[in-house]
Amino acid sequence: MSELLRDAGERRLIELVSSYFDCEEEDCAVVEIQGAQILISSDMLHQKTDFPAQMTPYQMGWSLVAVNLSDIAAMGAKPLYFLSALGLPSDFELESFKELISGIESCTSRFGVEVIGGDLDSHDEITLTGTVIGTPGDGKIVRRSGASIGDLVCVTGYLGSAGGGLRLLKEDENLDQTNPLVKALLEPFPRVEEGLILSNSGYVTSMTDISDGLLVSLSDLSRASGISFKIDEEKIPVYSDDLLEFAWSAGGDYELLFTVRREKIDELEELVDFTVIGSVVAKGAGDRLSPLGYDHFRGMRNSDFYASK
Amino acid sequence: MSELLRDAGERRLIELVSSYFDCEEEDCAVVEIQGAQILISSDMLHQKTDFPAQMTPYQMGWSLVAVNLSDIAAMGAKPLYFLSALGLPSDFELESFKELISGIESCTSRFGVEVIGGDLDSHDEITLTGTVIGTPGDGKIVRRSGASIGDLVCVTGYLGSAGGGLRLLKEDENLDQTNPLVKALLEPFPRVEEGLILSNSGYVTSMTDISDGLLVSLSDLSRASGISFKIDEEKIPVYSDDLLEFAWSAGGDYELLFTVRREKIDELEELVDFTVIGSVVAKGAGDRLSPLGYDHFRGMRNSDFYASK
Repeated sequence: MSELLRDAGERRLIELVSSYFDCEEEDCAVVEIQGAQILISSDMLHQKTDFPAQMTPYQMGWSLVAVNLSDIAAMGAKPLYFLSALGLPSDFELESFKELISGIESCTSRFGVEVIGGDLDSHDEITLTGTVIGTPGDGKIVRRSGASIGDLVCVTGYLGSAGGGLRLLKEDENLDQTNPLVKALLEPFPRVEEGLILSNSGYVTSMTDISDGLLVSLSDLSRASGISFKIDEEKIPVYSDDLLEFAWSAGGDYELLFTVRREKIDELEELVDFTVIGSVVAKGAGDRLSPLGYDHFRGMRNSDFYASK
Repeated sequence: MSELLRDAGERRLIELVSSYFDCEEEDCAVVEIQGAQILISSDMLHQKTDFPAQMTPYQMGWSLVAVNLSDIAAMGAKPLYFLSALGLPSDFELESFKELISGIESCTSRFGVEVIGGDLDSHDEITLTGTVIGTPGDGKIVRRSGASIGDLVCVTGYLGSAGGGLRLLKEDENLDQTNPLVKALLEPFPRVEEGLILSNSGYVTSMTDISDGLLVSLSDLSRASGISFKIDEEKIPVYSDDLLEFAWSAGGDYELLFTVRREKIDELEELVDFTVIGSVVAKGAGDRLSPLGYDHFRGMRNSDFYASK
């Protein structure tokens, strides 16, 4: 019998495509055009997986921009331009369309990003693809591959919040959206400003965003840097302890995970809010972290593959 | 009752988004980053509208690249990099996935374009978004807005072929794919090389590609340049006269439509193969051309909106 994508699993598919095109796994592609260093990333969202029933068209537009900007933030770069390809049902309401556009406008203008165009298409399932283009802030970017033994492992914000928000909405579908967990789920806030400060500091050795749970992101840094991690679960920042399982394995948080030279941690703490959750150790000497995050093809994770040449 | 997208129609939606974000309607966005001039375009294809049942996964991958490169060709620029966001069903076969990737590889390498990454997602309907990044060839690009009265109107290749191919496949679903009409439909060939020669010549005053039929493309140039056209229908290049209706209104040809300074037409004919089909006349003095091409939201056309600032 022929093997299907769900048998292969997303990890193997990503490896297959990355090696086919000789791409490293990064949050953005990094290329040089006429001497300019440019970062590009493209992410697709769709109704079935990414838009809970309570999500408004405004929030869909906001989220489309936010998840794309998060990939630029993950490399500590500055986003400049945004393009969209919007696939919408022909019976989608015009007013909802305007709200969606307004959500795209709010999130791009919040981060000083210019919308430069896109594609419109009719599609049975709401399917939105965004592409973001950026440049290094002060000439620096942070990759996944620079973590060294002894570095400290840090995260911004609170983890597991989006997963907790989704659970709350399943329990009470009319829940007030001012609840911080629900808000984290429906209006993710990309850490663009933090990412820029972290990369400009020069103290951060590796970084990625946490779009599919902490386990997946740790696994990505571990593979790229050739190291392992000791994580102190008690230090993982969560609004409440019952969110820890979501922190490890649920998608949607869009916080930053990064490693810092130990001797610079005090200086960095004066620049950005973050939490130290562990340290970098030699390969094989760390916790056993398996990539148990969300794989779309197995009902689990989702991932990018990007060149960084 | 609330107005729906299909009531508004794609033309009005495009105008709404373009004016909201202050984008002109072009085939690509044109931006400057650190002094480098960069063209970007993003196009989404999906099974229901864009992939006839006979289309192989290889041809889907080829087409995804081709339609995106066609937008770069339409401005006479040079494509450099390609990104994809691939939404595929979890029961898609791994072998088909490899064929799709191989189709992306064939078309990018045919045109010297490098694949720099993308996004993978599970999606009920096959949904493929591509993004292409390019630069001006010899420092020049051609926009939709430069046509002047007296210029000649020209097209590359044969029109109506893809529409004819689709009709043939509806009549005989097992038709040999070596038929030139079927091949035009299933493996569109973007006019990248011709576009570059045309822009570098300096003789071409406006240009676009014909992705949704000649009427739509003429209407786009007419609106952007503030002129009208006299078209000699007998001169429209078609494999057979029964394809004329497709030439006017069917999608999928991906040929170039452009205007040329009349006194330079002989010089240009030595550089590229094309056909003169009419001339540019004053606004209001031309043929009555209504944009009757494909509108996705009304069962008709599809369109891009791009900044060109």
